[in-house]
Amino acid sequence: MPTPAMLVIGAGDATGGAIARRFAREGYIACVTRRREAELAPLLETIRADGGQARGFGCDARDESQMVALFDTIEARVGPLEAVVFNIGANVNFPIRETTARVYRKVWEMAAFAGFLTGREAARVMVPRGRGTLIFTGATASLRGGKGFSAFAGAKFALRALAQSLARELGPEGIHVAHPVIDGAIDTAFIRDNFPERYALKDRDGILDPDHIAEQYWMLHRQPRDAWTHELDLRPWMETF
Amino acid sequence: MPTPAMLVIGAGDATGGAIARRFAREGYIACVTRRREAELAPLLETIRADGGQARGFGCDARDESQMVALFDTIEARVGPLEAVVFNIGANVNFPIRETTARVYRKVWEMAAFAGFLTGREAARVMVPRGRGTLIFTGATASLRGGKGFSAFAGAKFALRALAQSLARELGPEGIHVAHPVIDGAIDTAFIRDNFPERYALKDRDGILDPDHIAEQYWMLHRQPRDAWTHELDLRPWMETF
Amino acid sequence: MPTPAMLVIGAGDATGGAIARRFAREGYIACVTRRREAELAPLLETIRADGGQARGFGCDARDESQMVALFDTIEARVGPLEAVVFNIGANVNFPIRETTARVYRKVWEMAAFAGFLTGREAARVMVPRGRGTLIFTGATASLRGGKGFSAFAGAKFALRALAQSLARELGPEGIHVAHPVIDGAIDTAFIRDNFPERYALKDRDGILDPDHIAEQYWMLHRQPRDAWTHELDLRPWMETF
Amino acid sequence: MPTPAMLVIGAGDATGGAIARRFAREGYIACVTRRREAELAPLLETIRADGGQARGFGCDARDESQMVALFDTIEARVGPLEAVVFNIGANVNFPIRETTARVYRKVWEMAAFAGFLTGREAARVMVPRGRGTLIFTGATASLRGGKGFSAFAGAKFALRALAQSLARELGPEGIHVAHPVIDGAIDTAFIRDNFPERYALKDRDGILDPDHIAEQYWMLHRQPRDAWTHELDLRPWMETF
Repeated sequence: MPTPAMLVIGAGDATGGAIARRFAREGYIACVTRRREAELAPLLETIRADGGQARGFGCDARDESQMVALFDTIEARVGPLEAVVFNIGANVNFPIRETTARVYRKVWEMAAFAGFLTGREAARVMVPRGRGTLIFTGATASLRGGKGFSAFAGAKFALRALAQSLARELGPEGIHVAHPVIDGAIDTAFIRDNFPERYALKDRDGILDPDHIAEQYWMLHRQPRDAWTHELDLRPWMETF
Repeated sequence: MPTPAMLVIGAGDATGGAIARRFAREGYIACVTRRREAELAPLLETIRADGGQARGFGCDARDESQMVALFDTIEARVGPLEAVVFNIGANVNFPIRETTARVYRKVWEMAAFAGFLTGREAARVMVPRGRGTLIFTGATASLRGGKGFSAFAGAKFALRALAQSLARELGPEGIHVAHPVIDGAIDTAFIRDNFPERYALKDRDGILDPDHIAEQYWMLHRQPRDAWTHELDLRPWMETF
Repeated sequence: MPTPAMLVIGAGDATGGAIARRFAREGYIACVTRRREAELAPLLETIRADGGQARGFGCDARDESQMVALFDTIEARVGPLEAVVFNIGANVNFPIRETTARVYRKVWEMAAFAGFLTGREAARVMVPRGRGTLIFTGATASLRGGKGFSAFAGAKFALRALAQSLARELGPEGIHVAHPVIDGAIDTAFIRDNFPERYALKDRDGILDPDHIAEQYWMLHRQPRDAWTHELDLRPWMETF
Repeated sequence: MPTPAMLVIGAGDATGGAIARRFAREGYIACVTRRREAELAPLLETIRADGGQARGFGCDARDESQMVALFDTIEARVGPLEAVVFNIGANVNFPIRETTARVYRKVWEMAAFAGFLTGREAARVMVPRGRGTLIFTGATASLRGGKGFSAFAGAKFALRALAQSLARELGPEGIHVAHPVIDGAIDTAFIRDNFPERYALKDRDGILDPDHIAEQYWMLHRQPRDAWTHELDLRPWMETF
């Protein structure tokens, strides 16, 4: 049996990287993408230093032909994709009257359309094998619109609709489709640099550790098929909800 | 005080037409759009024959500049928009592996992106006046993804996210944002010609009468601002849900 | 055809009274209950002064035999019940460790068990006629648990489960079951006396007018059966949600 | 540090037993209850044969004084309760007109009121320590009312309201409150004897293995507090939802 591969679309943030590392630790060849391939170098080095295998791909996940080629390449040259994670977000907040058509469209292309391409291509390679895990990363805005969130919530709602539709369509084909909803700040450079007060909660476990998120993704992949989870929330103990 | 205007984006189906007629009956100048202006003639004639006022506009609701111009024209030449209804659907069902990127994008452009443009332009003209009603037509797929519905549910979920976001953002500005969810077949030529067994339920009130939907839209517009409804479902008595 | 009757279980507050007055205005004989019959006198007088017909009944809605007798009496001596409204709330807030078993049970008996008795007895008289409207008053706590709301949310969630179950069971029997969710303070003596700052919002339409709530209940009753609403929210324009 | 204890209220079915065994395997003293203590003997023997520690308690979970005494006894004589699981169901289905007040009340007492007592007593012992896990077992009927389910859905909705309320109240106290929703048939003697066609799906992993459910409960207990799950579903791959 060939060494299994897994793929993280959008490994540019701490969460995507942590997920790739978690699967690599279990023997999966971690395939990771972001727009600019060169920026994947630190992640690839980390995985390899841990004794894992990793492959980086520069890929604009909104580009259909690039995405088709990506799945083809991995299946042909790396190994069968047993798990695929879509992890691109695009969190923006603008008053409706200041939301340009360009922003509304771009947020959807990144967080929903790219998710659709990911889901479709994953279905293409997984359905004939009758197995595989497909995870779409959700957020608070996946469940609830809010002031200034017309664009972001629109894209995240659409991604959740995709996850639900695929769960109902592909579950009976043996594909496990899941939609974890991350409800809280994550321990990232972005939060550290832009929301220092929020980041200070880290000392009290008030922000999510990417490795703990990754652990849940691995757990979802390991669930036996008689007891699959489609949706679960992940939230720091002190987070208001 | 000038005669108030109202606008139905997507008056090509029975529902959009019935809504326009309902408001025209109350003295509103009903502005209606669809892609091809000529096809609005029968609706305009009906409204005028009933003694109402109506204006037809050919408009591709996915085109930002056309939409901006539409709102500008109505406000300048017809009257202040007191109610705006977004009524474009794009119900399609395809297995995920047969859903082309073109279809996925087009369904979103029609049912979500055009809704965003509608909401933004309505906000632009209504917020300075501190009043107005903005209604987005929802469907079963607004609440639940399903097999084959990745594209359609994606767009309808996104539209619901928009409606929720705008309700929270514009409610305190005096704008009433509502999202009726139509759950059932509507008495249209499309259902009559394509689903004759379904259509036969008409005799037992098993499909929705567009005039009854329109009555609810009018009721939403009439609600005093201390008791606004954001979401309500509409469904035939015998419909399973 | 006999004069139709309607029934409000829990007419002790402004909302229940307003609903009874609204239906009486349309020619229905308004039957109203509260624990102590004598306290219904002002409401009965108001309805009669408006030219309507009303009947008051002292009834503990948690007592099965009293409830069975109530429905029997009305059907035998007043008229066929075309609409029944369950309007008992029991809004309390206690930290979980200070919530006594007695309180938890009593809140459920008032807001859920009494609703069950109401729904069952209404079904008993309405199903053979194949028509009727059955409305259960919901609240914010019907949709979402919250700190200190174990008892109240528990009862309101149970009532919503009842409304959903009956809608699915009795809809195809011709009975319209609805669950309006009131999300905001209502213009009542209770709010005026206990939450004066909240009450002050009345000048800006920031609290719900009971007559406007009643108008929606009447609207629900009037919906033709091809376009029934099961759930809708009612909320002041400035309410955060 | 004393050996930690855990408690399963309602260990009479396969699921409760599997959860107790799973925690016992990790070194917890598994305390288990059901109405008749004698019937716990096989479970206690199994746990002990596996090298675990277990304690059985006859307890009517609807009886406040018995429940208070149960928690007191365990804390005094067994060990600190680090995890408490409420696992009593009461799945019944009756048309509304055939649902007796006795049944409606009893189902609520078993599936909701007993859950309230469990949650309150768990809070009493856990809050002073600032840690602990509290899990309430949900079902499909926790999310959706259905024909014939007025009683059962009423109780399960109330339990979910409790879980949500406690999560919001006790989370910031360090208590992890979770509500797994089991959506499907479980591999039990009840299903085997009463639904043989359903049970036959076991060969294709079409019904839930209690050990796999138990694994998820253990996983919930192990989640670090920066990444807690409040609600997740568990469902066989071929289950329609």
